[in-house]
Amino acid sequence: MKGIIKVFDPSLKKNKTAAELFESAADLPLICPHTHVDPRLFANPEAGFSNPAFLFVTPDHYVVRMLISQGIRFEQLGIFPVNEKECTGDPREIWQLFCEHFSLFDGTPSGLWIRNALSMVFDISDKPNGENADDLYDRIISALQEPDFSPRHLFERFNIEVLCTTDSARDSLEAHDRIKASGWTGQIRPTFRPDALIQIGRPGWIDDMDKLSQVSGVSIAHFSDYLEALSLRREVFKAKGAVAIDLGVETPYTCQLSAEEAEVLFQKGLRGKLSHDEARQFGGLMIYEMARMSLEDGLVMQLHAGSYRNHHSYIYETYGPDHGFDIPVQVEWTRNLKPLLDSFGMDQRLRLILFTLDESGYSRELAPLAGSYPAIRLGPPWWFHDSPEGMLRYFDAVVETAGFNNLVGFNDDTRAFLSIPARHDLWRQMSALWLAKLVRRGQISMNTARMRMVDLAYNLAKQGYRL
Amino acid sequence: MKGIIKVFDPSLKKNKTAAELFESAADLPLICPHTHVDPRLFANPEAGFSNPAFLFVTPDHYVVRMLISQGIRFEQLGIFPVNEKECTGDPREIWQLFCEHFSLFDGTPSGLWIRNALSMVFDISDKPNGENADDLYDRIISALQEPDFSPRHLFERFNIEVLCTTDSARDSLEAHDRIKASGWTGQIRPTFRPDALIQIGRPGWIDDMDKLSQVSGVSIAHFSDYLEALSLRREVFKAKGAVAIDLGVETPYTCQLSAEEAEVLFQKGLRGKLSHDEARQFGGLMIYEMARMSLEDGLVMQLHAGSYRNHHSYIYETYGPDHGFDIPVQVEWTRNLKPLLDSFGMDQRLRLILFTLDESGYSRELAPLAGSYPAIRLGPPWWFHDSPEGMLRYFDAVVETAGFNNLVGFNDDTRAFLSIPARHDLWRQMSALWLAKLVRRGQISMNTARMRMVDLAYNLAKQGYRL
Amino acid sequence: MKGIIKVFDPSLKKNKTAAELFESAADLPLICPHTHVDPRLFANPEAGFSNPAFLFVTPDHYVVRMLISQGIRFEQLGIFPVNEKECTGDPREIWQLFCEHFSLFDGTPSGLWIRNALSMVFDISDKPNGENADDLYDRIISALQEPDFSPRHLFERFNIEVLCTTDSARDSLEAHDRIKASGWTGQIRPTFRPDALIQIGRPGWIDDMDKLSQVSGVSIAHFSDYLEALSLRREVFKAKGAVAIDLGVETPYTCQLSAEEAEVLFQKGLRGKLSHDEARQFGGLMIYEMARMSLEDGLVMQLHAGSYRNHHSYIYETYGPDHGFDIPVQVEWTRNLKPLLDSFGMDQRLRLILFTLDESGYSRELAPLAGSYPAIRLGPPWWFHDSPEGMLRYFDAVVETAGFNNLVGFNDDTRAFLSIPARHDLWRQMSALWLAKLVRRGQISMNTARMRMVDLAYNLAKQGYRL
Repeated sequence: MKGIIKVFDPSLKKNKTAAELFESAADLPLICPHTHVDPRLFANPEAGFSNPAFLFVTPDHYVVRMLISQGIRFEQLGIFPVNEKECTGDPREIWQLFCEHFSLFDGTPSGLWIRNALSMVFDISDKPNGENADDLYDRIISALQEPDFSPRHLFERFNIEVLCTTDSARDSLEAHDRIKASGWTGQIRPTFRPDALIQIGRPGWIDDMDKLSQVSGVSIAHFSDYLEALSLRREVFKAKGAVAIDLGVETPYTCQLSAEEAEVLFQKGLRGKLSHDEARQFGGLMIYEMARMSLEDGLVMQLHAGSYRNHHSYIYETYGPDHGFDIPVQVEWTRNLKPLLDSFGMDQRLRLILFTLDESGYSRELAPLAGSYPAIRLGPPWWFHDSPEGMLRYFDAVVETAGFNNLVGFNDDTRAFLSIPARHDLWRQMSALWLAKLVRRGQISMNTARMRMVDLAYNLAKQGYRL
Repeated sequence: MKGIIKVFDPSLKKNKTAAELFESAADLPLICPHTHVDPRLFANPEAGFSNPAFLFVTPDHYVVRMLISQGIRFEQLGIFPVNEKECTGDPREIWQLFCEHFSLFDGTPSGLWIRNALSMVFDISDKPNGENADDLYDRIISALQEPDFSPRHLFERFNIEVLCTTDSARDSLEAHDRIKASGWTGQIRPTFRPDALIQIGRPGWIDDMDKLSQVSGVSIAHFSDYLEALSLRREVFKAKGAVAIDLGVETPYTCQLSAEEAEVLFQKGLRGKLSHDEARQFGGLMIYEMARMSLEDGLVMQLHAGSYRNHHSYIYETYGPDHGFDIPVQVEWTRNLKPLLDSFGMDQRLRLILFTLDESGYSRELAPLAGSYPAIRLGPPWWFHDSPEGMLRYFDAVVETAGFNNLVGFNDDTRAFLSIPARHDLWRQMSALWLAKLVRRGQISMNTARMRMVDLAYNLAKQGYRL
Repeated sequence: MKGIIKVFDPSLKKNKTAAELFESAADLPLICPHTHVDPRLFANPEAGFSNPAFLFVTPDHYVVRMLISQGIRFEQLGIFPVNEKECTGDPREIWQLFCEHFSLFDGTPSGLWIRNALSMVFDISDKPNGENADDLYDRIISALQEPDFSPRHLFERFNIEVLCTTDSARDSLEAHDRIKASGWTGQIRPTFRPDALIQIGRPGWIDDMDKLSQVSGVSIAHFSDYLEALSLRREVFKAKGAVAIDLGVETPYTCQLSAEEAEVLFQKGLRGKLSHDEARQFGGLMIYEMARMSLEDGLVMQLHAGSYRNHHSYIYETYGPDHGFDIPVQVEWTRNLKPLLDSFGMDQRLRLILFTLDESGYSRELAPLAGSYPAIRLGPPWWFHDSPEGMLRYFDAVVETAGFNNLVGFNDDTRAFLSIPARHDLWRQMSALWLAKLVRRGQISMNTARMRMVDLAYNLAKQGYRL
């Protein structure tokens, strides 16, 4: 991207090997196989961003969490109880508050991403603070009214080759249809996310069966109908460009059940009569079934494990999901994945990409699994670990056992569209620093490092997601 | 501190950024919000230290452990069975043995602290060994007889601004009263440690209820009496200067029980009839109740989790607590703290500082919790992890998610008074090295690093403990 | 070793301290107290290696795993179902395939070891690839026909002072007898590995009792007979040069049972009637009993924990053990070892060396245990962690708590005889790099570093295994 002012480069300049490696990959197109960007941003050619607060603060749960942790209230950030949805808060006040507290983000990746986005997109190199908040607000608002700052323009300016959104399995994918119909050639693909339909004990699951029935056209009375409906939805997603599905689970427990056992659980689920343990069995079965379907339709299967969702009950009930804090827990992979791997792990038609919030599993379980099973690849450091040190720990822990070819490069995994180039840039810088260490130690040659740099920045993501 | 000869500085000299940062904070006063120093040292203006063995060897469980691990016997170190308490051992022989084995401490923080204390306090720069043991003994003994080496003088020479001791909840705090009465202005504060009164299944707990009753003046027949007595003790501690309480638990399990359920458990406890699981419930309830009281009285709540106390049964039974080896175990925080956090986690009147011996929780659970809940702060690396690499791992693992403002700087956590400056010095050096890395990479500016250096060395501890 | 071309040294050249430390230990003899080298290689003076494929590819499970993980089939690597044992595959084709995929090993220790072995033993400095595969094959084949490349010659050229093999407890040790009878003076020692005889629930265990009976001369009807037979086998091993035993377990659970309880379990075992939990109890008892026997006969006890063996059922059943992927699991040490340590942990006649695949235990449990109990020492980083970063993480995590003297230096732990010098060389390089860091920071003096370098490279292994 032309005209980038990087906020994160001095050490590269002093480290010639790293600088050369970084430069060789800095301008490669961005592969974004896993994001939470809203496809509606691209559906309408006139779509734009509203203001700095709703762009950088309110929707970014990394930012909100940190401010909350220091005693700021949700309402001060424009987040209101679900029964007061009409409230929004004053964006200029929210922005002021955010800038006054910007030093909370010292040393965090959020701080880097935001400063980098301000610099790259809005040519703002000052660190936000209470004094300059108002001026920054005006400069951003004024830029956002320029046509150059429309999502489609930025998509092209960011040099994004492909961007995959994450969409509910029940979604009509209407926004994706409109993007295609508009004739705009930016490559935006949906991803099939069936979590809500699979979590059989969840409040609302029974109602969701009706919605699944409607959207799939399958009348769902039995487990086999349910599987058929899910399979049809996968077909629709695939036909509209999806290359992958995504599952989010607390524990990656898997199991294989007979059709009869599954039917019993399913019927209990429809009557709301499942025990905790039965719900767990059903969840384990559905991971297994999703893998089986991937064997058939070739959709890459992402498994994100280890997040205890909505940790604070009152906040969750009052402000809704994604505000009640998702906190990681320990994850066991070796025993939990065995049933699935016994059936499908040796079959390369399955591509199962694993993500964890429990870094202790990197060298202990994940790298050995990926370095053995043809079906398994490792996703990049996820969420809290998508950070400079998180990346270095990841490389150190997994490459020695899994090599490079069992990785899938980088995911930005963000709903903050403007931060995408900064996130890829950070990954590429840390990749370069880390490869330079291997070159310095003589573990790999500079030629190998150059090839691996392009792999980490571009090829592995593209190949890993069958793009 | 004037005239310090540092044993741990060459890399700082070569790293200009780190050296500058360190120098900017090297002379700040020491904030010591969590120590195990005996307040009686300061109660009597004439108090002094007896000899090198009882100063550096016998009371330091880090040192004793290491010598034991290589086959030295407790008795050789002046530690005798509890029924032979009159025995003490010959200090010169103990010191000789210690010096002969000093190389066991190569590469350990104990080795650094001791060499640094010898250097700073006694101007001894030689590494102890079998040959110089006798000479060092004489030099230390002779220095200890000087008035400059009294605890009060050293307190001032060490530039300690405030030092908090750790005191049993049943303690009369008479030593603290005497310090105050003496007119000496050194700031020594007690800390409320109710562990013994809370561990309902512990041998002696029933007898301790009588003592609690006496010291609090509350006749304890019911759970509500027990809570009242504890609350009154907290008030007394607070009135005598305490700013914090401290709990030590193997597992940070918390739960909320009804008054009726609590009463049932308490009555069973008084009759010595609690099952293992009931005792665990009671322990979980008491962490919860201590947090509730902190909401009211504002005492900062420290929670140290993950130590399996008195691991070796025979040693524990023969030599008493703190000799039978405390060995860490895995710690789960996310699910265990949920009941407490559901009730009090969003309330800033509670300040809950978490300490762990299980480093795998730093990035997985502790930093996300501290980076979300207003009530939570993270304590510094504890015990085995209070070391150069332990500190670097801590910074790397927690700051990217929790930032700086959710930390509480440093605790020396020691009963070895002479090692306090060395411990703070090491923390400040590692802070400087780590901040210099962030500056070098461009993650923070030098200005930010300078401010954060003072935060880590001074401000965060003071603010974190509401001092 | 004269004429070594190291593939892994540039950073050492730039780091003068590390280079000096490395050079001081680079030529010390190799102590190999734990290997899986086949003693038959040395039993026959004419023995030689057959071809590059059967030397570097087929028997090396690190290499096989990685190739399998990228979709190559076992048969393509010369590994056939157990009922087709006559098949071997064409070695030239296997070698070609391996060379074509050699870049999979970029960044892995296998890649380093193989390149180093090619360089040191065969004077081949080219990185294998599809083009040079044929030429390399010819050069290696031709070298292998020279007398200089016999195992005995290489043993001497590698400067191996002692090499311990790993032998089934039922093994007659006939190869070891032949080595001794041949008059060759290379020091090859057996190690007693009783795993198969201890895993009471294992298929084949009942038959193995007959074999144990035959080889020991003890008629085994009762638990006491079984213990006697095992004890006699240990005596035989010791008489033939063994200094150690080795146990491999998933979980290091230990327990002490009465003679009556043990007899009940044993009788159930003989009838094949043990529950899962009873088998676990018996396993825990047998670790305990092996420690008790070590007190008596002085054999060093190695305990390798944390590998879930034969993870993929079909591969295991079809191709046999060591092909179905061994994947690590979490390991708990503190509670599991307590019964054993309560009985024997303070007794220096026992030397118990612990190995883990779960690095999270290094600083949490293993270093504190080794830094307390006289009986415990820590084994070097094992298997997946026997790698540059694995070694640095190990040093960083354990030395600050356990010091140097509670470590036992290095184990190469390999069946790939040709890789032994490369593995020790890597350990020595990483030791030098790590010690240089401590010197640079002023934590230890250069003199201390020089002594510790020799300890890590040579002394600690020799002393640790009572060699």
